Amino acid sequence: MDGDERYVLEPIGVVRSRLTDRARAPRQGDEGAPEAVIELHPSVRAAADGIEPGQELILVTWLHEAARDVLKVHPRDDRDRPLTGVFATRSADRPNPLGLHRVTVLEVGEGMLRVSPLEAIDGTPVVDVKSTLAPRRQRDEQAT
Amino acid sequence: MDGDERYVLEPIGVVRSRLTDRARAPRQGDEGAPEAVIELHPSVRAAADGIEPGQELILVTWLHEAARDVLKVHPRDDRDRPLTGVFATRSADRPNPLGLHRVTVLEVGEGMLRVSPLEAIDGTPVVDVKSTLAPRRQRDEQAT
Repeated sequence: MDGDERYVLEPIGVVRSRLTDRARAPRQGDEGAPEAVIELHPSVRAAADGIEPGQELILVTWLHEAARDVLKVHPRDDRDRPLTGVFATRSADRPNPLGLHRVTVLEVGEGMLRVSPLEAIDGTPVVDVKSTLAPRRQRDEQAT
Repeated sequence: MDGDERYVLEPIGVVRSRLTDRARAPRQGDEGAPEAVIELHPSVRAAADGIEPGQELILVTWLHEAARDVLKVHPRDDRDRPLTGVFATRSADRPNPLGLHRVTVLEVGEGMLRVSPLEAIDGTPVVDVKSTLAPRRQRDEQAT
């Protein structure tokens, strides 16, 4: 197959945020993004067992408002900067518009995670959640 | 829509590696993974313009041999560790088996990137490539 197939992402949750306008949202989480709630779909809630407040996670989102046919951009929409391939940037516009967000867990509730900071807008589908490190390695690092 | 839709990933390239057996591959890039070549599909090669040797990138792969119906695992297959939700781990088995790999670019060729380290096995589809930081912020950080 070697890449000729297509793969279907099934969202595992959705972002609930006070951010509603992509054009006015921060570009990255560390640029003043607010906290947000991740609502997890009932079918995958067991996959969040073990997540604890204070933990760092990587959220993977599907940037549903992005343009998939864009291969080059002016980084950060700055026309003074040369057109650059989107794979060399963090542009949301790209062939598979996946967003990566490093967040801290503030609260774990029934089928929800409250996290911060998150620049994704309200309604953004979440497709994956990962530990930033394998738990054993986090524990080892904490122990040293 | 709010997460009820499905999204179709179209691979943008494929991993070429001497690793061929998932069971024998390192679990993480920093656990002795080798270098590998990313072959980019011709239709998206322009999206790699601007990538340079020495740059750090995040590769996003589709872990095509993973099980999508697994919600809990013993972390690192260690039966002494309690079953944990996959979203609290780096398990490849998960509802949307996306792999995140932080790599350094060793060489940029015609439609290819040579990178290291990469624990993904030969034939793994690549679905996205991102800068670890927006270029301006990398530059700013280098300047300070």
